[in-house]
Amino acid sequence: MNNSLPRNFYLEVEYDGTDFHGWQIQEGKRLRTVQGAIEKALRQIFHKKIRVAAAGRTDTGVHARMQAISFHVPFAIPADALMRACNAILPGDVRVKRARRAKGSFNARYSCKGRTYRYFILNRFFPDVFARNYSWWIPEQLNVAVMRTVACAFIGERDFSSFTNERDSYEGTCRRTVRNISIRRQNESIRIEIEADGFLRKMVRNIVSVLVEAGSGKRSAASVKRILRGKNRDLVGKPAPACGLFLWRLKYDKKYFYTD
Amino acid sequence: MNNSLPRNFYLEVEYDGTDFHGWQIQEGKRLRTVQGAIEKALRQIFHKKIRVAAAGRTDTGVHARMQAISFHVPFAIPADALMRACNAILPGDVRVKRARRAKGSFNARYSCKGRTYRYFILNRFFPDVFARNYSWWIPEQLNVAVMRTVACAFIGERDFSSFTNERDSYEGTCRRTVRNISIRRQNESIRIEIEADGFLRKMVRNIVSVLVEAGSGKRSAASVKRILRGKNRDLVGKPAPACGLFLWRLKYDKKYFYTD
Repeated sequence: MNNSLPRNFYLEVEYDGTDFHGWQIQEGKRLRTVQGAIEKALRQIFHKKIRVAAAGRTDTGVHARMQAISFHVPFAIPADALMRACNAILPGDVRVKRARRAKGSFNARYSCKGRTYRYFILNRFFPDVFARNYSWWIPEQLNVAVMRTVACAFIGERDFSSFTNERDSYEGTCRRTVRNISIRRQNESIRIEIEADGFLRKMVRNIVSVLVEAGSGKRSAASVKRILRGKNRDLVGKPAPACGLFLWRLKYDKKYFYTD
Repeated sequence: MNNSLPRNFYLEVEYDGTDFHGWQIQEGKRLRTVQGAIEKALRQIFHKKIRVAAAGRTDTGVHARMQAISFHVPFAIPADALMRACNAILPGDVRVKRARRAKGSFNARYSCKGRTYRYFILNRFFPDVFARNYSWWIPEQLNVAVMRTVACAFIGERDFSSFTNERDSYEGTCRRTVRNISIRRQNESIRIEIEADGFLRKMVRNIVSVLVEAGSGKRSAASVKRILRGKNRDLVGKPAPACGLFLWRLKYDKKYFYTD
């Protein structure tokens, strides 16, 4: 084994959040979490407790098409071998899709320059048993054009205090920059994509909740601006269900990675 | 309640087979079956044990986009009310999509004139956690053109003794008429559709298993004909995994149904 190989790793991970109590290990509770499953696999491989950092700490039932994690390992190992070893141990609802050696300064959470989430709505009269864990079923017809108009209010740097359930846990600021929101209907499915520098807890689901109210005629663009100005969580209704939400894409500077 | 309403019902049902031990109740065993879930719901509605007949008795892990069932009820009830009552009681992985009043002679199993199954293969190097319960993941590239050529050997009336694990349970004959097999690749997904008058137990999965062997160069059209002639289950390898299989469409004569 070449001990000069760097020991900081970047892993791209995909998971079905249905049977997980979210990403993060909750100390003292015996819950099945994605972080728990991955750290358990790493402990088997390295015979040592390894703490991993993640780009997005997804909640219970939220999925990831692309989650990024990073961690330091106690001895050198080729990236491909690490990926294969992880996939041999991990349960079927978590897969490592890519492993790369990263520079020592890289951290999946703090080095992340952009995060994109997608939210899926099944907008038809009948539910679909195969989509039940992967979309929000809304039988009433939504007006996508109105949703798009209202979405503009979120674009740019804004204080999203009204859109998180844990305002006080963000030291300093609840300001985030939403770079883009795109809303597309394809037959009976509506896809909302939101890109930002970062997100507060439940922020996407609270935004989707407001967009859906707008799409069903219960909310105007002006009222959305009032919510943003109000900086008060009580101005927003229930967040959209977790099952429709996917962490979809993450942006990192290439400089952090070694070319394999 | 209008007691002159007919008491024979036809229900179209959709289910995710992942967490079911197949369609059929297995007497003496406490297993979760689709038939069990539906009969339990009907018992709650009618306060009486009701036996239902189904078009296809799907195995453990097999799904249904369209399963048809029929049963007689002890008192008259409008079809829509019956559907809504069932959906209010049934678990989320089974949905009634349609309910119709049927003539007394109708039976979902014996009146069925045609059955169509679809089988999905994910044919790419990487697995997909979201498709893991709904497709067979095959990393080696399959040749769809070869699969189509070999599929022709199954078309027409044939003795499918070699393609069932329960040859002896079919009194009389293992002859079935396969009307059509279509195989389509869409990006990384391959879809096999098979239509027949009826199917033997595990027949679709055994046919798919042989088609996949052909697609990976391990089996010729001539060898498929030999298997059919041989009438011996040992000539076929392991059946394709259950999770890729969907009961998809059923054909009934319109004469059985009352126009609502």
